[in-house]
Amino acid sequence: MNLVLVQEADFLSDDRVLLGDRRLQQIRDVLQAQEGDSIRVGRLGGLMGQGRILRLNEKSAELQVSFHQPPPTKLALTLLLAMPRPKMFRRILQHCATLGVPEIVLLNSYRVEKSFWQTPFLQAGQIEQNLILGLEQARDTVLPRVRIEKRFKPFVEDQLPAIAAGSLGLVAHPGDYAPCPHQVTRQVTLAIGPEGGWIPYELDKLLEAGLQPVQLGERILRVETAVTALIGRLF
Amino acid sequence: MNLVLVQEADFLSDDRVLLGDRRLQQIRDVLQAQEGDSIRVGRLGGLMGQGRILRLNEKSAELQVSFHQPPPTKLALTLLLAMPRPKMFRRILQHCATLGVPEIVLLNSYRVEKSFWQTPFLQAGQIEQNLILGLEQARDTVLPRVRIEKRFKPFVEDQLPAIAAGSLGLVAHPGDYAPCPHQVTRQVTLAIGPEGGWIPYELDKLLEAGLQPVQLGERILRVETAVTALIGRLF
Repeated sequence: MNLVLVQEADFLSDDRVLLGDRRLQQIRDVLQAQEGDSIRVGRLGGLMGQGRILRLNEKSAELQVSFHQPPPTKLALTLLLAMPRPKMFRRILQHCATLGVPEIVLLNSYRVEKSFWQTPFLQAGQIEQNLILGLEQARDTVLPRVRIEKRFKPFVEDQLPAIAAGSLGLVAHPGDYAPCPHQVTRQVTLAIGPEGGWIPYELDKLLEAGLQPVQLGERILRVETAVTALIGRLF
Repeated sequence: MNLVLVQEADFLSDDRVLLGDRRLQQIRDVLQAQEGDSIRVGRLGGLMGQGRILRLNEKSAELQVSFHQPPPTKLALTLLLAMPRPKMFRRILQHCATLGVPEIVLLNSYRVEKSFWQTPFLQAGQIEQNLILGLEQARDTVLPRVRIEKRFKPFVEDQLPAIAAGSLGLVAHPGDYAPCPHQVTRQVTLAIGPEGGWIPYELDKLLEAGLQPVQLGERILRVETAVTALIGRLF
């Protein structure tokens, strides 16, 4: 944890926060901070700054906080992701928040197992908690937006063309396609399929919506690895 | 598992293998293959090909195998990695094997906790098992070489200059440095520090050995994320 994120409910007054949960443990055990120390803090959705520890015990930490520094910029990216298996989903949320993805669309696909949509990690509080872990790692304060689109066809037909318009729209897919470009300076819409890939019908629909297929070489990457490698490559 | 890797000990004769462990479970449960089906197989350290399932039950699978296709090429990369924490180490081994890293050097650093070197994941069999999982994912047969260098100074002074010579030598480090380059066509030697980064003394020694510092932007990445993002960016 490289940043302690505070929220409205944590404020005692304009410049005082009281923390008593996971963040208390992290301040004590991970940062090993003590009364009088200053640590990096961020206001969820707002600026970053410093927090001076006024009081610290087993139950809570009281900090005097000031905020002055803007968070890092996000990537110019909308990421469409076939809903991954739950354990990987949790890590992908964290990676995406850390890497600065501003917008994630979770999409159904023929090869997404129905049970993946039942995971508790899809509950709003769980999504936010994992995104916050990623933000704390990166030192960022702004939550990515996560949209859940369980119906592939209406989303791809009715909404994707407007999202893709004016951006470089890419579908990572194995095949005889151009290699995924490097170091792009435009807004990107990137679709990453499930394990086993999009089925031909889905690929066709994504191309109709304005995306172009790109390949990543012979090696078959796990979705988690592909997300991070593609972001490293594109930006 | 996109490839079933077989080894010398699995062969009954020139073109027959008998599999009875994790691979049997994967053939039955993941691939859901049946007698008569053909599946992709690879010979550890050798060629890839097809295996026809002659016999399949709860105890073993017997396959008739033939090998004709070379594995994918490796990256032109030597990766120096400060020993990561055990859980992450295991995943990094898998990612590196999947991505095609041919050579990994695990290095000590001031900020590597002593306990990290005690992990059972460092035993030769465990390292190989995790690398094999990564190879099976990617469809590759050639194990990366993993070297364990617990003494930072002798390695960096006596061995690193020869490794780095003739390559593009990079240390990923936060600071006022050039951004890490994209799409490099030369051999690369890349050093990635521990959580918290190399200490100044270590950075100086790495630079003396011929590496140059490069930065990855304001965001602080987990080691696992940095490895994959940097490889995606460099190659």
